[in-house]
Amino acid sequence: MTIKAGIVGYGNLGQAVEYLINALDDFELFGIFSRRATLDTDAAVYPVADAHKYKDDIDVLFLCIGSATDIPEQATSFAEHFTTVDTYDNHSKVAEHYAAMDKVARANDNVSVVCTGWDPGLFSMNRVLGLSLFPEPVQNTFWGKGLSQGHSDAVRQVSGVQRGVQYTIPAQSAIDKARAGDGQGLSKTTSHERIVYIVADDAEQDRIREEIVTMPDYFEPYDTTVHFVSDEEFERDHKGAPHGGYVITTGELQGHTAKVEFSLALESNPNFTAAAMVAFGRAAARLKEQRNVGAYTVLEVPLYLLSQQSLEDMMQTGLV
Amino acid sequence: MTIKAGIVGYGNLGQAVEYLINALDDFELFGIFSRRATLDTDAAVYPVADAHKYKDDIDVLFLCIGSATDIPEQATSFAEHFTTVDTYDNHSKVAEHYAAMDKVARANDNVSVVCTGWDPGLFSMNRVLGLSLFPEPVQNTFWGKGLSQGHSDAVRQVSGVQRGVQYTIPAQSAIDKARAGDGQGLSKTTSHERIVYIVADDAEQDRIREEIVTMPDYFEPYDTTVHFVSDEEFERDHKGAPHGGYVITTGELQGHTAKVEFSLALESNPNFTAAAMVAFGRAAARLKEQRNVGAYTVLEVPLYLLSQQSLEDMMQTGLV
Repeated sequence: MTIKAGIVGYGNLGQAVEYLINALDDFELFGIFSRRATLDTDAAVYPVADAHKYKDDIDVLFLCIGSATDIPEQATSFAEHFTTVDTYDNHSKVAEHYAAMDKVARANDNVSVVCTGWDPGLFSMNRVLGLSLFPEPVQNTFWGKGLSQGHSDAVRQVSGVQRGVQYTIPAQSAIDKARAGDGQGLSKTTSHERIVYIVADDAEQDRIREEIVTMPDYFEPYDTTVHFVSDEEFERDHKGAPHGGYVITTGELQGHTAKVEFSLALESNPNFTAAAMVAFGRAAARLKEQRNVGAYTVLEVPLYLLSQQSLEDMMQTGLV
Repeated sequence: MTIKAGIVGYGNLGQAVEYLINALDDFELFGIFSRRATLDTDAAVYPVADAHKYKDDIDVLFLCIGSATDIPEQATSFAEHFTTVDTYDNHSKVAEHYAAMDKVARANDNVSVVCTGWDPGLFSMNRVLGLSLFPEPVQNTFWGKGLSQGHSDAVRQVSGVQRGVQYTIPAQSAIDKARAGDGQGLSKTTSHERIVYIVADDAEQDRIREEIVTMPDYFEPYDTTVHFVSDEEFERDHKGAPHGGYVITTGELQGHTAKVEFSLALESNPNFTAAAMVAFGRAAARLKEQRNVGAYTVLEVPLYLLSQQSLEDMMQTGLV
């Protein structure tokens, strides 16, 4: 089965999905849906408003649109016509998004795999797996070293900031504690530090630093360090989007400790998010082919559906 | 739902499953089935030959019997009467075992989750997940530091060996290569060493060492070190059953490297194998309750079924 894919949105995520669809044997790209008339791509480009006209040409539609407003406003309208996959990442509204997508997908015989990517996504899977193994699990998630988009945006809104990025870095001492089974009391705040790189005029720097480190919620409770760098240094060292993190679970079993650890080190956050999204897009198309309907979290998708290989092949080749 | 559990076999694995069933809120132990008339346990003990009489009292039967002969000979007879979970670990015969269990379980409206534990089991899941993320993944599995039961048995069969254990240790240089994305050419042989601890009379030691390091398949292709220790030292340092390992996958995404790593560090191999088995036992009971039938590999079991929490709770509490 070749899976015919459509992409909505052509930012970093949409472009990374396009790359993967073209690189993978079992997918073919039907086209990209955008509000813009022209895009810098060899793929066919269609107005997003016309997407429904192509519902019979597409097995799975990748919703590469923003979590802040686009997904809540637009995702259900795509689920009406298509089997979809998204990377909605607002943890506090997952249940709401799932319910909305489930209702529309079910009514239209489609599948919607929601909240893919790595957190939510692969980290959610490993949190649930780790917690399921022990009577009294101790679990910690650490993020970084990685570029935090939301915090970088916040930094850039401080007056006088010409360019700015924020990296979240887990404290090694906190990771060590979690690995040793002593992660119980660790808070997100005390186990991460925030490092900010900014381009700004000399005269503004003291005020900018003060405004950042005292910014409520975003920075105030954290150990925050602000570095001022030249435009050249910023251009050279701070244009990437690395990220990653750790889900560490420990438990006692008759007095014997066990440690279960899942970690990611990613040179490009959007590229890896796309990689997870595409694997779950493959699963979405297969779930639909198996005549399932409705919304699925990553926790409901059996792992064999992520793979290009058949289950039989995986058993025969020793993967199982 | 409280899950009523039965256990067949009362070796290390069966005892560890008993401990977990008693420690977890959502299970209760019906009893243990054994060929022995009395066991050192507070649980009810029944003759294994009578197990079928209790089929209506048990939601899931844990088959804590050996992979070498017991599982191939006996597992289908249990699948005739019970929803089962096993830790069959012969990678080359997984497909055969799956087919045999599927046929019997299906004919009798039962579920059989096969080949749980950590390898096969959690490692299988992470191999498939990692390979599904990249167009050209590079993946390595490393085992250890851990006690290898099969190799320890082989060592103990050498004439003159009074006590003996064998540990498998992954080479740090090989792990580093895999993490750096250079794991392509690593063989299992060159990326692991074997360390043997033996109690034997002085006069026998040279011959024993020679017989071990030249033992075909088991030791001959590996970097093997044999240490002779006193009975006291052996008793103090080599009575445990630690194990663990790593599944490391890397891939390139538009020129950006991503590393996905899953690792285990276990003070007690049988206790952790039991922990994975019990989580999949929970899933087996739920699959049956949802009116599914037949055999399942760990790759076919959606992760939310492993957890005591409901899917709704997991979404509400931010696990997803």
